[in-house]
Amino acid sequence: MRMYDIIKKKRDGGELTTDEINYFIGGVTDGSIPDYQISALCMAIYFRGMTPRETCDLTFAVRDSGERVDFSSINGIRVDKHSTGGVGDKTSLVVAPIVASFGIKVAKMSGRGLGHTGGTVDKLEAIEGFRTTLSDAEFIAQVNKIGLAIVGQSKQFAPADKKLYALRDVTATVDSMPLIAASIMGKKLAADDDCIVLDVKTGSGSFMKTVEESRELARLMVDIGKNAGKKMVALITNMDRPLGNAIGNSLEVIEAVETLHGCGPADLTEVCITLAGYMLSLSGKGTPEECETLAKQAISDGSALNKLIETVKAQGGGSKLIQNTDNFAKAEYSRPVISAVEGYIERVDTEAYGLASLALGAGRNKVEDKIDYSAGIILNKKTGDYVHKGDKLAVLYSNNPSTFAAAEEKLLAATKISGTEPKNEPLIYDVIK
Amino acid sequence: MRMYDIIKKKRDGGELTTDEINYFIGGVTDGSIPDYQISALCMAIYFRGMTPRETCDLTFAVRDSGERVDFSSINGIRVDKHSTGGVGDKTSLVVAPIVASFGIKVAKMSGRGLGHTGGTVDKLEAIEGFRTTLSDAEFIAQVNKIGLAIVGQSKQFAPADKKLYALRDVTATVDSMPLIAASIMGKKLAADDDCIVLDVKTGSGSFMKTVEESRELARLMVDIGKNAGKKMVALITNMDRPLGNAIGNSLEVIEAVETLHGCGPADLTEVCITLAGYMLSLSGKGTPEECETLAKQAISDGSALNKLIETVKAQGGGSKLIQNTDNFAKAEYSRPVISAVEGYIERVDTEAYGLASLALGAGRNKVEDKIDYSAGIILNKKTGDYVHKGDKLAVLYSNNPSTFAAAEEKLLAATKISGTEPKNEPLIYDVIK
Repeated sequence: MRMYDIIKKKRDGGELTTDEINYFIGGVTDGSIPDYQISALCMAIYFRGMTPRETCDLTFAVRDSGERVDFSSINGIRVDKHSTGGVGDKTSLVVAPIVASFGIKVAKMSGRGLGHTGGTVDKLEAIEGFRTTLSDAEFIAQVNKIGLAIVGQSKQFAPADKKLYALRDVTATVDSMPLIAASIMGKKLAADDDCIVLDVKTGSGSFMKTVEESRELARLMVDIGKNAGKKMVALITNMDRPLGNAIGNSLEVIEAVETLHGCGPADLTEVCITLAGYMLSLSGKGTPEECETLAKQAISDGSALNKLIETVKAQGGGSKLIQNTDNFAKAEYSRPVISAVEGYIERVDTEAYGLASLALGAGRNKVEDKIDYSAGIILNKKTGDYVHKGDKLAVLYSNNPSTFAAAEEKLLAATKISGTEPKNEPLIYDVIK
Repeated sequence: MRMYDIIKKKRDGGELTTDEINYFIGGVTDGSIPDYQISALCMAIYFRGMTPRETCDLTFAVRDSGERVDFSSINGIRVDKHSTGGVGDKTSLVVAPIVASFGIKVAKMSGRGLGHTGGTVDKLEAIEGFRTTLSDAEFIAQVNKIGLAIVGQSKQFAPADKKLYALRDVTATVDSMPLIAASIMGKKLAADDDCIVLDVKTGSGSFMKTVEESRELARLMVDIGKNAGKKMVALITNMDRPLGNAIGNSLEVIEAVETLHGCGPADLTEVCITLAGYMLSLSGKGTPEECETLAKQAISDGSALNKLIETVKAQGGGSKLIQNTDNFAKAEYSRPVISAVEGYIERVDTEAYGLASLALGAGRNKVEDKIDYSAGIILNKKTGDYVHKGDKLAVLYSNNPSTFAAAEEKLLAATKISGTEPKNEPLIYDVIK
């Protein structure tokens, strides 16, 4: 088999065989295929696409390029949720405890933030003492005991994806549906869950800018998961505005706790209830509607919040921070962002909001950057709100006040205020089963 | 400027600016752009194409990536002919002396053969003592004195093309019109001619398999040349069969001499007269028709053959070989290829004929391979001929008889004999001005 022939076949619109795809990913993984052939094939795939069969094979090859996790010693049904990444997305901190409070197992391996999106592991590390690294034995024992554990991805999951993504990132071949689907699902399927609910974020703060693209990607990923024997659902959710009002690590933990208290922002609460509903439903607890009712009960009776406290304790975190979020360390400096104009917030560039938070110290430009856990933004006004001159749009938090000017400028530039009241876009565009 | 943005722009169907194209070729030349970005852009160009303006800019950038030749000290009009490469194509050895015999200057820098196609320089080196390397001063002095000199390309012409071509060759991005045109014309324009006649070969023995593709490429190249201030014509000629009957180095020199004697094969003679006619016409000697008559005269009155002899002498070659081609060393072994079937030669795979000759020792698989100058093939039957069982299709020549079996097998497999008389395809499909 020759890589040249594989490139030419795809260039000419042919369908690659399973063997050809395995040869390609094998060569990416062991370094035997040179970068210039990999990038040429990625560009040919960008133009020619892949059939569902090819995309599935590519995903499985990516999954099998590295370590996999064995969850067979976990008793009961294992369910996970995966978000394609957004701004202010703290749903994992809310839905995992809800679902685990019903005896469903959530063995969560999460990522760190990079660029404008945050990561669940970083948020948890805002809780003093919380250990995001557990041994396999500790991890599985905790899941068996309390139903929930959340750790960082320490395994060498899907190394072919790491290599491929790095090349795609510098050759303008990121925006290809089959390559995106194989990248996300190749990593996701390396873990060993029975049910997966995907949260495909859509809009200015996410990877997918249109609902149509999101639907296509969701359809692809749901089918790949089913092919791998998983129960799958994908929600298409709105990321044309941040989710909730808090952006930043401890700020988002606090908002998640408020949501588990039943007094979180309406948009965040709705998305969390819907996600938890589908996670419970896939796990056999009833119809999605019935399971949404269950999820609401777990909030109102405090069992979900108790599950979070139990988890934080089990992983060595300061649970009194969760019991009373006033105990979280506050950023030394804050600055309000004031509107100089009057009108409706017609739309916002959500990605720019994420970058403003990053500028305050809440995120990472490079993998090795350090995070200021108390830095971030609390939004006082969101899309659709009417703003008067002098109104507070948001409050910025940071331990480095020299970052305020740039963050404020970004935020203001990203907020379009006009005489037009925007039409009310749905929070959940679609459910792909 | 970032290469990423250039790739993305082309990927999305944009038109690259002159600056962007210069940045790209500059980075290819100095090695600052990594191979994986070069190959990704080549694939994007494969799919999106280039406008004539972009193709021109690319050609000029390739031309300017290395040394150029200064012919300003040559007196008179300088004309050249360039073939895209075929099998049995010895036209340079015929047309250059014809044209030079009229006082037009032919300062020819030719290539070597690789794969199934031969090279003029290799053919000339079959003439004992012929020096294909001259100093610039010697080269120009000879052109000024006798009107004709033929040397190998010793200059660092268009190094960007060398790098680009090597990458395209292993990433399935060779077959792109703008990239092909820029590669051919980038090198050609590094020389300093006033008039260029292109011979775009078409069919099974050439790069371009269809007349339509050839026309498109010829149009592109003619326009690029005109843009660079050259007088241009391109012929689209038939390479669905070898040109003439001889394939191999000394065998082709002998056939060229026979053609200059007026007794060469009809197809070779016709193509040579037409090419020479256009070269003379571009140089101001009259209409193409008038100039064809001149070309025929130069053959019939011996002045073209005398010009070849003069040139061989000037470059140190054994001119008695040209005066009497029986003096050429013959291959030690020969073997006839006999037809086992009866019928018309319906079609042949010309490239496979070239590869059969290569197998006999007449060509190169790799640049460093040595050539057996007397090896090759004389065809006794060509496309359209009727063959009886036991008829001699061809005679193979080699100094290594162990090569005969493979060459014979290739030749027979490449010759389709059937009951169908093929329709008579033209020798010259079109003239692009």
